[in-house]
This record gives sequence, structure tokens and C-alpha cells, in this order.
Amino acid sequence: MRITDVNLGQEMHDLARTLFPICRSLTGNGVRQTLELLRKLMPELRLYEVESGTAAMDWTVPDEWNIRDAYVIAPDGRKIIDFKASNLHVVGYSEPVDKVLSLDELQKHLHSLPEQPDAIPYITSYYQRRWGFCLTQRLRDSLEDGNYRVVIDTTLGPGNLTYADLVIPGDIAKEVLISTYVCHPSLANNELSGPVVTTFLARWVKSLDRRRFTYRFVFVPETIGSIVYISRNLRALKENVVAGFNVTCIGDDRCYSYLPSRDGDSWSDRAALHVLQHMAPSFHRYTFLDRGSDERQYCAPGVDLPIASVMRSKYGTYPEYHTSLDDLSLITPNGLLGGFGVLRRCLEVLEIDRRHEATVVCEPQMGKRGLYSTLGTAQVSEAVKTRMDILAYCDGRHSLLDIAGVLGRPAWELSEYFGELTDHGLIRDADA
Amino acid sequence: MRITDVNLGQEMHDLARTLFPICRSLTGNGVRQTLELLRKLMPELRLYEVESGTAAMDWTVPDEWNIRDAYVIAPDGRKIIDFKASNLHVVGYSEPVDKVLSLDELQKHLHSLPEQPDAIPYITSYYQRRWGFCLTQRLRDSLEDGNYRVVIDTTLGPGNLTYADLVIPGDIAKEVLISTYVCHPSLANNELSGPVVTTFLARWVKSLDRRRFTYRFVFVPETIGSIVYISRNLRALKENVVAGFNVTCIGDDRCYSYLPSRDGDSWSDRAALHVLQHMAPSFHRYTFLDRGSDERQYCAPGVDLPIASVMRSKYGTYPEYHTSLDDLSLITPNGLLGGFGVLRRCLEVLEIDRRHEATVVCEPQMGKRGLYSTLGTAQVSEAVKTRMDILAYCDGRHSLLDIAGVLGRPAWELSEYFGELTDHGLIRDADA
Amino acid sequence: MRITDVNLGQEMHDLARTLFPICRSLTGNGVRQTLELLRKLMPELRLYEVESGTAAMDWTVPDEWNIRDAYVIAPDGRKIIDFKASNLHVVGYSEPVDKVLSLDELQKHLHSLPEQPDAIPYITSYYQRRWGFCLTQRLRDSLEDGNYRVVIDTTLGPGNLTYADLVIPGDIAKEVLISTYVCHPSLANNELSGPVVTTFLARWVKSLDRRRFTYRFVFVPETIGSIVYISRNLRALKENVVAGFNVTCIGDDRCYSYLPSRDGDSWSDRAALHVLQHMAPSFHRYTFLDRGSDERQYCAPGVDLPIASVMRSKYGTYPEYHTSLDDLSLITPNGLLGGFGVLRRCLEVLEIDRRHEATVVCEPQMGKRGLYSTLGTAQVSEAVKTRMDILAYCDGRHSLLDIAGVLGRPAWELSEYFGELTDHGLIRDADA
Repeated sequence: MRITDVNLGQEMHDLARTLFPICRSLTGNGVRQTLELLRKLMPELRLYEVESGTAAMDWTVPDEWNIRDAYVIAPDGRKIIDFKASNLHVVGYSEPVDKVLSLDELQKHLHSLPEQPDAIPYITSYYQRRWGFCLTQRLRDSLEDGNYRVVIDTTLGPGNLTYADLVIPGDIAKEVLISTYVCHPSLANNELSGPVVTTFLARWVKSLDRRRFTYRFVFVPETIGSIVYISRNLRALKENVVAGFNVTCIGDDRCYSYLPSRDGDSWSDRAALHVLQHMAPSFHRYTFLDRGSDERQYCAPGVDLPIASVMRSKYGTYPEYHTSLDDLSLITPNGLLGGFGVLRRCLEVLEIDRRHEATVVCEPQMGKRGLYSTLGTAQVSEAVKTRMDILAYCDGRHSLLDIAGVLGRPAWELSEYFGELTDHGLIRDADA
Repeated sequence: MRITDVNLGQEMHDLARTLFPICRSLTGNGVRQTLELLRKLMPELRLYEVESGTAAMDWTVPDEWNIRDAYVIAPDGRKIIDFKASNLHVVGYSEPVDKVLSLDELQKHLHSLPEQPDAIPYITSYYQRRWGFCLTQRLRDSLEDGNYRVVIDTTLGPGNLTYADLVIPGDIAKEVLISTYVCHPSLANNELSGPVVTTFLARWVKSLDRRRFTYRFVFVPETIGSIVYISRNLRALKENVVAGFNVTCIGDDRCYSYLPSRDGDSWSDRAALHVLQHMAPSFHRYTFLDRGSDERQYCAPGVDLPIASVMRSKYGTYPEYHTSLDDLSLITPNGLLGGFGVLRRCLEVLEIDRRHEATVVCEPQMGKRGLYSTLGTAQVSEAVKTRMDILAYCDGRHSLLDIAGVLGRPAWELSEYFGELTDHGLIRDADA
Repeated sequence: MRITDVNLGQEMHDLARTLFPICRSLTGNGVRQTLELLRKLMPELRLYEVESGTAAMDWTVPDEWNIRDAYVIAPDGRKIIDFKASNLHVVGYSEPVDKVLSLDELQKHLHSLPEQPDAIPYITSYYQRRWGFCLTQRLRDSLEDGNYRVVIDTTLGPGNLTYADLVIPGDIAKEVLISTYVCHPSLANNELSGPVVTTFLARWVKSLDRRRFTYRFVFVPETIGSIVYISRNLRALKENVVAGFNVTCIGDDRCYSYLPSRDGDSWSDRAALHVLQHMAPSFHRYTFLDRGSDERQYCAPGVDLPIASVMRSKYGTYPEYHTSLDDLSLITPNGLLGGFGVLRRCLEVLEIDRRHEATVVCEPQMGKRGLYSTLGTAQVSEAVKTRMDILAYCDGRHSLLDIAGVLGRPAWELSEYFGELTDHGLIRDADA
């Protein structure tokens, strides 16, 4: 599973295509169906159901919402809005309705975007009972006076909130947390790129012969889901999580973005910045004030987890965001592959970022180990210089990432040198 | 007493006009008369008398100096220099003299400014017995040979040094120290703007329903006065003073200036920089090397108080400084009002700059409190965003001023949000 | 011994001229002869002999190498390469050889520089038995087919490694370490400038009436010599050395260079940067990654000494480096004098960089001590201002170097003020 593997990009795009039509929301069968599909790719994925009304921190798990159909029939009998054509047409969590009303009455329940006349907006009303339709401004402008029949065939009542996690054990109990969300209907960059890339990251972690950290992959509905997850796992998360990322908006091919943890100086931040500086140096750098996804919960006071975000085009910054234009054409195999590659590198960096200490005082004699030219001239090779530079900083204080920073080299390029020096007995792991 | 109140500026200028003719010096009746006039505006102001010869740190309180009259009569009988026309004409602390002497002899006792031919310089000789006259270069150049009669009718002998303070109690014993000086004769920006603005700051503090800190307002002759004050109050000042400002040169309308405390990182420095960056972002920033007023004593090793200076045109930097051109036309109602406003904001910032901590783990559900739109769209309002940003940093570590810095907003604009969130029980004071 | 003393520059160049012809190597009589010549200038210099095969950290002292003669005779009978003309002609540590071989065979043992056709390269093979000749590319290109006689009359077998040190006691046992190397044959900037300037620094330190620190001057063959020195003195060095410099490439007149210690924030680094910023502000600033001399050992993990390097043109950066062009014309009296001057200033700064504390609280009354004008005007003199600024920072935390940094003044210009203020009893040494 190499990041240059174009098939991998296509595989991820195919998975997004499979998940795209499902009508996800905070709760309901769309979430369950999505998680069941992901479980086919991650058999150890565990699904959880939490009853409506359950308290979670300051919140309460809402009623479960399910939708069978919804449409609007114009005065001339044409079905002008049809849930089956786009699940964005219905305001999320709409209560059931079946009535005939005038255009004026209908208008109060319509949502459109005057500045994006061909886009259907994505609207929800989770915590206030409402019903409504979303449509393009162009369609809305063409509506004529008369009586419209509106049908929304939904159920909204006590049920469950569904989420899932997958814990892949490592050598130690300390955890890397990867969280993503599954509560948006047919939206591609924000949201399907998140669970898709997270699924392939989990598969990659699972495929490793050995891993230092335990990895926790979390698939939740945004906000209420992460709050429920935190409320059920707070102590363990605070005790174990040493780094992690919220995975969202990771599928288009326009740019890379970084959003820090609350204090911006966590290990996750350092790993993410290192990777982006080497792999995508023109990345966009946001601040924690620009946050908007589940890092709001993971980094909240009292939770304080070291969670950063590495994205492609960040939510809220691209014109297609939260509209029907955020579709399968916006995310690309290459975009997903690049996002996967950067996040995978972040995890690799966490795995290799250890402190080492030299086993000998003063420089070792590299020549007798075949690691230095025996002929003294004015020049030394790049490899020889790299070895000596690494040794010079293996003082038990500088970690591999620190040393990579000093050398201006990607951490993953130095890793083999650390292995070689360890094999020669010249350095030892100071974090063991 | 709002800072946009133009009457306040005029009131301050009127007070300066009343105080302007008084011949103040390190000691003497001019200081007493000035402090008595200020006591009319601050009835609780306490005056102190310290006898000549009293030791104060490395210094000794000097003899008291008083002046009745002084003049020079030219060979043609005209009174060409007259103390009654300007009290700057006499070198401060001149010993008495009444004699006739030649122009050559007289010249040794004259002071003028060749490069400012219409300005009378301000000269003193506190610690070496002398006598002298100050005059414009233009007048000096017109003097003709002949015999001049010089009369200086002063007394210089054992007496007292006079100073005053006003302590306004707050909720806690910790103090904010505001110091200014009253030892210059008819000089407006440097000096009268200082005691005038300080008086109105004291009246504003007194007018508050409640204040967190105890406020100590100090009116002293510069240098010897602050040294005397410190020598008599050192332990209490070191124990209680948490912030403070030396108030000087705060009345003209040309610019704002900031001079840090010795280490430049005190709470006073942070408050002053925050206020100036928002209210007068083009302010001049000096270093502690540019100091020249009583911060020299308050910030001296062994005293180490957190005293910064916020000024308009700083002493020593404007052409009228220490000359007769620093008169009532140099300070303006608007200049005084602006200076008062900035210092008042500094005190407000100190009052509100507390640390808070969230009472709930994870983000609270703002919607159920009417603090968040119930309709989920791509946009949130500025107020909603501000509330969430404040909550995100209410971690018991970030103070209001820290959070204002993160948000790039004036602290006083955030204060109402902190009140609202406290009222909703979402945050609590972590410094209580 | 003032640094403007042109004779001193010439004296140093003369010493380099005396040492230049000697064929130094890691071991052997060339090193001994060099150190004996230096002992004439530093009678207390102690020489040490360490037997071949002695273990030193990860290394072993090599066999001793001595050379009597070496040459190549061309097919036409001419002696075309002659050790007596330049000791660079022989690869260092060449084993003895005396044979006739074809040009093709000979070529395998020749070293030249195609891009510097008139330069003889400097090549060694200390830890692999070889023999070889170095020559100009121009000569090499002119060689014709035929049989060549090669003679290298060397001995390479058990013997000793020779090094020397000189410890000049000071008031305290804490040490300043100055190390330089003596293992290169006829090479001027890299190397003779090093031992020459170090010798004159030692003579200057010795000439001082009194010195605060003990000074340790070390003359070793590079790498193996410093490793041997460290292995024999590690505990004492770690316990005592508070600052120091590796002295190399300090004789040409083109630029100044600075290479930091491993962490770059040692006292030596701060002293060197202060001196260079004031004496040679356009100096080249390298990083520890550019290291290449004995700071590699002194700053190695486990040794961790605070050793920085102040150089003229740094090794490896100038075209003549490690070739016959690095000769006596490359180093100049002025270049050596400048290098000596900068290093001497570094030692002076270490001597004077102490913390002081004011003896009086608040500013002292300078006027009564004749240190301040008794006439108060708008201006004060530079000297008066400097005294007051120094006093303002004599808080027991800021050292003289810190204060010089705040004032933007060279430390050595402030030293007399500290003396004056100490003499007046206004400050006292806080480090005593």
C-alpha cells in the first residue's frame, strides 16, 4: 500500500461512490448502513447504539430520525422536488408532513442560495422541530402561484444514536486517536473523504507487522457523536491519547490545510507541520479560531486532547462547501491519495519519533565499521555526513523529529540511518 | 464620565489653567498650594510634610525653597526680566541675591537657548547653591553693556518637603499604583497634564460602584519625592502593588507613547500595550533606556515595582520640552481627554483581566440557551462565534487579556460576553 | 600586547614561517618538533606521549609514522616528484615503498585536483595501509608512458602519539579551554594559524597581572588527539570547563566566521557573538552542522563541553583549503592579528562578565559623588546616562554581558563603568 499506488486512490474514490447515495444524519439507518459497509473493510469495527434521551456532558442524545421519501408536487402536477433525486432536498431532521399549501406558505419552508443559483444547500434542524426543502435558486425562481402538495415521509422519535470504533493494539497502551464523522448525506469532500481515508488508514495500520502505539479509529456523527464518545471514554482518552487527528475534508485536489490543536504545540502539531512542510510546503495554515469540526470537542477545556487537523480544502473555505456541488466530482482519486499519504506520513512520524543516545563518548570511529571513507580528503559523502550529524544530536534530549528539524530533512528519510546506527550498536533508544 | 465627553477634556484643561501660574518646585508653598487645590477635587487626598535633612535611601530631603519676587533692571532702568511675567525666569532653588553687576558678570548667571531664540529654558539647581536667570536668546542678544541690578527674593533653609496620596479601597488589598509629580513651575505637558489627568482618574475610580483593586494615587515632587515615598512605604508597596503607571506628559494631541517597566513584561506592560494597540496603534514604543521620570525609582533594583508609562508626547522628545513653549496652548482638551481615556482603559483592563474556567466538559449546547441558531447552515453570527471562541479558551490558564489577544479583539469588548457566559453558568472565575 | 600592535601580527607570521616546513602528521617527530618549538615560547608547556595501541573511547592510538624522504623518478631519469620540495607530495601515513612500475600502475597511487590544476592536494590514510603521491594536475597530465621508480622512505610501527597542554592557574578552578591542532604538514590557514594564535593567546593570558579563570591550552593532533585528551581528562573537563574555543583557520584576512557549540547557547557562544557583532558585524554565521574540527569531540554527547569556534575563513569554504595553495601567502600579519584580537576579546569578555547588584535602593544621588551635573537641564552626558543605565540593570540577574546587550554597547567599553561604580560602593559583585 504505497502512496504512489494510483489504484489506492481509485479504491478510495470507489468507496466514496458506494457511500454517497446513503442519506446519513445524526442518527438513523443511514449511519448504520454506512458503518456496516465500512465494517466489511474493517471486520473488527465495533458499532454502538446509544438511546435517545441519554445525557452526554451538557447534551442529550436526540430522537432518531429516518426518512423514506419526500417530494413537492407543483400545481401542474409535476414532481418538482424529489428526495430520490438528491437527499439534500430535505432539511435534515424534518418532521413528517403531508399537506397542500399555497406558494406563499411553501416559501417559508424553502432554502436556496441566491449567489449559487445552481446549488442545493445543505440545511439541518436537529434541535428544533421543523420541516423544509432545499432547492436551487433557479428552480425556486421558476415557481408559479398555486397549490403545492408537500410530502415528507419521516419518523422522528425515540431510538438510538449509532457510532463505531476500532482499536488496533500496539506495543504500548498509549494511543493515537483518529476521529472522523458520518452524519452528512450526499456530500463528498466534507464528509465522505473523511471516513473513506480513515478506513484506509486503519487498514494500513492493521497491515503493519508491528506498531508502537495502540490506534483508536472513531466514526461518529459530528458534535453530538464526539461528545457522546468523549463522555463515555473521557478518563481512558485523557490517560492514553498522546497524539491524534480529526479527519475531514481530505479528498479534493486543490491544496493542503492545517489547523492546530488548542495550544498548537502538541506532538500532533509538530508531526503535522513537519510532514506538510516537506510534502506540501505551500499548505494553508489556519488557527484554532478557524476550527469547526470535532476538534472543538477533543480540544475543549476539560478534554484537552492533542488533536490537530490535516486537510485538503478546509470546510467553510471552498465555494462548494455544504451544497450539492460538494459531490463525487469534487473529490478525486489523486486528492484522496494525497490526503491519505500525508496522514499516513504523520502516523509514521509518530511511530519513529523517539529519542536516542550515543553509546560511545566522542565520535565513534566510523572507518573501522565501513561507515566512513578510509582516505582523508576535503570531501565526505552525504550519507557519511548524515550519520555523523545524527550521532552528534543523539544526546537523549533530541528526538528523531527534532534532529530531522535541525538537519532540514524529512524524518522518514532519517529513519533508516537510525536503524543502521542502532544495528551497529552506536546508539540506543532512550525512550525504551 | 465617558471618554467621548468633550466637557471632560475642557474641565481638565481648565484645571491645568488654574494650576499653571503657581511656582512649584521640589519644596515650598507652590507644591502645597497645588495639592490644596487638588484636594478640593479629591477630598480624601492626604498631605504629608517631611522635614529637611530627613534621610531617604541614598538621599537627604533638601532645604525648603520659597520665592516672593525676582527681576533684573537694565542700565536704562527698565525691568527687563520679571519673575511675575514668567516663573521660569528664575533658576529653581536660586539663593537670594540683590546686587548690581556688569553685563559680563551677569552673563555667568544667565541661561538661554541659542537654537530656540524665543523660548525661556527651565533650569534648576537643587543640590548646589547658585542663583541665575533664564531668558530668551533674543532678549539676551539685545543686552547692552552697563550695570544691571539683580534681585532674587527667595528663602532657602530648613523646612519641609510636601507630598500627597489618596488610597481608594477595593475588594482586595492588592493595589494599582498611579504616580505623578508636582514640582515644575509653569509647564503644561510636562508637568501639569500629569496631576490633572491623575486627579480625574482618581475621581473616576472613586465613582465606580465597585472596584476589585485598591487604588493608590501619589502626587510627589519628582525623584526626591518618589524616593521619599518609596522609603516610607517600601514594604507595603512591594507586598501589594500588582500594577501601575507613572503619569506624565499626557496632555498634548500629537501622538501616544509607551515606555515599559524594567523587564517590560509586567501586567502593566501587557495592559498598556493591549490598550494602545487597539486605541492608538501607531503609538511610539520606547525602551526602558529612554526612561526619565519616577519609573526610574519605582522600577529600580530593590524596588522592582511593575510600573509602566503611557504618555502622549514623551518628555525629552518634543521641541517645547523644558521651555516656556510647553504652555497651555501645547496641551488641549482633546489631548487630555485622549490621554485620560487610554489610561482609564488600562485600569479597566486590569479590573476585568481574570482567568475563567468552563463549567462543562466539551462545548455546551448553546442552542437550548438561545445562544446559537437552531438552524444549521454554513454560517454563524459574529456573536455566536465570539462566545464559542471565548469558551474554547476558558481553561483556567488563559486570562481575559490572553483571550482578547488570541481573538485580536479589545478586552473591553469581550467583557460583556464573559458576563453573559457567567450568568448562564457556563464559566466561573478561576481567580476567585 | 595591544591588538593594534603591528609587530605582533608580524611576530605571529614569523612563527608560522618557522613551523611551516615541518612535516607534521597524527604522530611522529614532526609533531614533537613543533611542540618543542612552541615550548620555547611557553616554557610551562607540558608534552605527553601515548603509546600506539592505547584505547581511547571508541578509538585506538595508531602506529607512529615518520618519513625521511620520498620521490618519483620518471622514465627519463628526472626526479619529478620530491618530498623535499613539498611534504604534501606524500599521502600521509604512506607505508614504505621502493619499486619500479608502469604509468598505469602508478596512476592508481596518484592524487590530483582536475579543477585546481596547479594545486597539490592534501591526502591522508591514517587507518588503512596505503601509499600514494599527491601532485598537480598539470604535472600529472604531462606524464608519459614508461617505467617510474617510486621511493617512500617511511617507518610505520608501534611508537607514540604526542600532544601538549599548558594550564595557567587563575583565581578559581573553573577553566576556559582553548584547543588547537598540530597534525597537518605545510598548511598555513588550516592549520598553522591555529597553534600560532593559540600560543600568543597563552602568552597574553600569562602576562595578565591576575585572571579570574584557570586557562587550559591544548595542542593535539586533530580528532584522535582530542579524543585521547578527552579520554584522559573527561571528568576534570566536565567539572571545570565553563567556556572555551577551538582555534583553527584564524590567519587569513578575508572574513570572520563563527560556528556555535552543539546547542548554540553556551556562554562561549554568547561571548563570541557579542565580540563579533561589535568587532566584525559582517561575520559569517555557520551552524553546528557545518562543524569539522575538534568541536566535534568537545561538543559530542557525553562530553558536552561549551566550545564554540571563532575563525577567519572557515575550513572547507575557501578554495585553497587542504591544498598547497593554503600557504604562507594566504595568512597575513593583519589576518593573524585580527584573529588574535577577536579571540582575546572573547577571553576578556568571559573575565568581566559578572552579575552585580546595586547597594542602594532607588537611584543613588550621583551629584554628591561628582557623577552627575548639579545643574538640571534637559540634557545629560553620555557618561552620566551610561552610569545610570548600568545601575538600573544591576539587579543581580543581569550580567555585564546582558547589560551590554541591552545598551547595545561592547562589554569592554562598559567594564570601566562597573569599576567606577564598584569603587564608589554603588554596586557589588553578585557572583562573588
